[in-house]
Amino acid sequence: MRILLDAMGGDNAPQAIVKGAVLAAARTEDQIILVGPKTEVFELLCAECPDGIPQNIIIVGANDVITNDDAPVRAIKTKTGSTIVTALNILKDGFADAFVSAGSTGALLAGGLLICGRIKGIERPAICSLYPSLNGKVSLLVDAGANAECKPRNLCEFGLMGSIYMEQVLGRENPKVALANIGAEAEKGTQLTKKAYELLSESGLNFTGNIEARDIPAGACDVIVADGFTGNIILKLTEGMFGQMVGLMKQKLPKEMLAALASRTDYSEYGGAPILGITRPVIKMHGSSGPKAVMNAVLKASEFARQNVVGLIEANIK
Amino acid sequence: MRILLDAMGGDNAPQAIVKGAVLAAARTEDQIILVGPKTEVFELLCAECPDGIPQNIIIVGANDVITNDDAPVRAIKTKTGSTIVTALNILKDGFADAFVSAGSTGALLAGGLLICGRIKGIERPAICSLYPSLNGKVSLLVDAGANAECKPRNLCEFGLMGSIYMEQVLGRENPKVALANIGAEAEKGTQLTKKAYELLSESGLNFTGNIEARDIPAGACDVIVADGFTGNIILKLTEGMFGQMVGLMKQKLPKEMLAALASRTDYSEYGGAPILGITRPVIKMHGSSGPKAVMNAVLKASEFARQNVVGLIEANIK
Repeated sequence: MRILLDAMGGDNAPQAIVKGAVLAAARTEDQIILVGPKTEVFELLCAECPDGIPQNIIIVGANDVITNDDAPVRAIKTKTGSTIVTALNILKDGFADAFVSAGSTGALLAGGLLICGRIKGIERPAICSLYPSLNGKVSLLVDAGANAECKPRNLCEFGLMGSIYMEQVLGRENPKVALANIGAEAEKGTQLTKKAYELLSESGLNFTGNIEARDIPAGACDVIVADGFTGNIILKLTEGMFGQMVGLMKQKLPKEMLAALASRTDYSEYGGAPILGITRPVIKMHGSSGPKAVMNAVLKASEFARQNVVGLIEANIK
Repeated sequence: MRILLDAMGGDNAPQAIVKGAVLAAARTEDQIILVGPKTEVFELLCAECPDGIPQNIIIVGANDVITNDDAPVRAIKTKTGSTIVTALNILKDGFADAFVSAGSTGALLAGGLLICGRIKGIERPAICSLYPSLNGKVSLLVDAGANAECKPRNLCEFGLMGSIYMEQVLGRENPKVALANIGAEAEKGTQLTKKAYELLSESGLNFTGNIEARDIPAGACDVIVADGFTGNIILKLTEGMFGQMVGLMKQKLPKEMLAALASRTDYSEYGGAPILGITRPVIKMHGSSGPKAVMNAVLKASEFARQNVVGLIEANIK
């Protein structure tokens, strides 16, 4: 496997990305392709590896960067020398197997669509998010914000794609898929959720019904299906609550407790979240990813490609 | 003012309700009308007041109870001797000024609509919820679940009603009204939020724009406007997060810290949340309300009536 890694994405790039690449290189025989300004990345690699750069790291030059302030579609079309566009072109052409970036989510989605294309049969690709429950289990939230407005069939596709990813890449057996809703009963919610409930029930997935928002932090399911508006509200509210509570307790909470809380909600173990529904494996890391998160994302991207998640989605959507 | 109080609503009824009535009676000259089974309520009152029942408490008999398991509309139509139906009829006929209950939210909404009726010009009444921010400030969330599907105009009505309530009853000057959305910019979100943003901008309210879910727990505004689906997700997810985090920390957190956390999120100070958009003041208390919460709800209901919130909504909706 050859894994493309955006050297310039995220708050800690390129240092944390390069460090993560070196960590990953020691744990896999896959080739890691750092995409970024050649000289800068090379110098960082040399500093990081005084005994020599690992054989399975190579650099592909790309001097431009798409930032979070760039309008995604426009940036993909105009910043053709950017790390994201360069990497996605290599990915599309089959010279690499997966792409990992901590850069602009919108640009990754737009680029994935414009350069690699949708999986046939999937109407709306989704941005996923790894939702950390406080019992230490992680759920995959699909969609976390790509599609503010959805049709029932889109939600059903989200369930299918999320289920395959969780089974193949995170090793969850027969993943439990639940629909975010405002009541447990099938007839609760909106026209969208009622119809999506029906479709999911008939989908052959391990659909466990509606999940009320109250039960989401307890990690009651493996895949949380939601339209992108609801998914984004869930994700951001969770971050906000967590931040507020930790902030409030910081002074008085014993240090080991804060550390325990942080580890329960540490995304870095899980290696970023996939963009599902495009023809190539793309993983988006959190913008603040450090070396360990980068390493895990590279290793997960490798599984993403190796387990042929894209092919399985394609085969199962029919 | 005469305030009706459902003696049988909530988890701690009738004991906590009767205790709350006695606490309130000592703090107001308003008349408190306990609605419930006469003998039972009278005996509790006697036990609570060994020196004599306060002059301003009276009992109105009602022997039936609507539970959370009853289908709301059906219950309102068939359980005509229930505390809720009895109280709402007295309220509609003008023999009392406000009604407070910790009973079934659905039945209170259905009863409010069927018995008292909608305010002219308000298309969709809303169930509000007092959203406790962790900095100790409370926001009013409108709608918290009455209307899973909304039109832009409904959201604008929610903003107006919430603003009037917060100003008149909780004493917030020129309340900040914000729209729950997935981005700060006007063009973010769904067709619904985009159009609602426009309407709210032109409404003459102190509309501060979109609020991202991340900022909701920080108490950045006085009124959070949302469709009932989104509002319910926000409310329940907050409860779930809070429960999980407190559960996780219970063993290790210093007692005073847990108490501080609890007080920050203590709804009982705020006296329940209104159902807005019906022609009479109705306040729904949390099902688990204790005596202090009941007392505060009675006092707030009195303000709700005294400040003529219903009349102000009617006048401003035009």
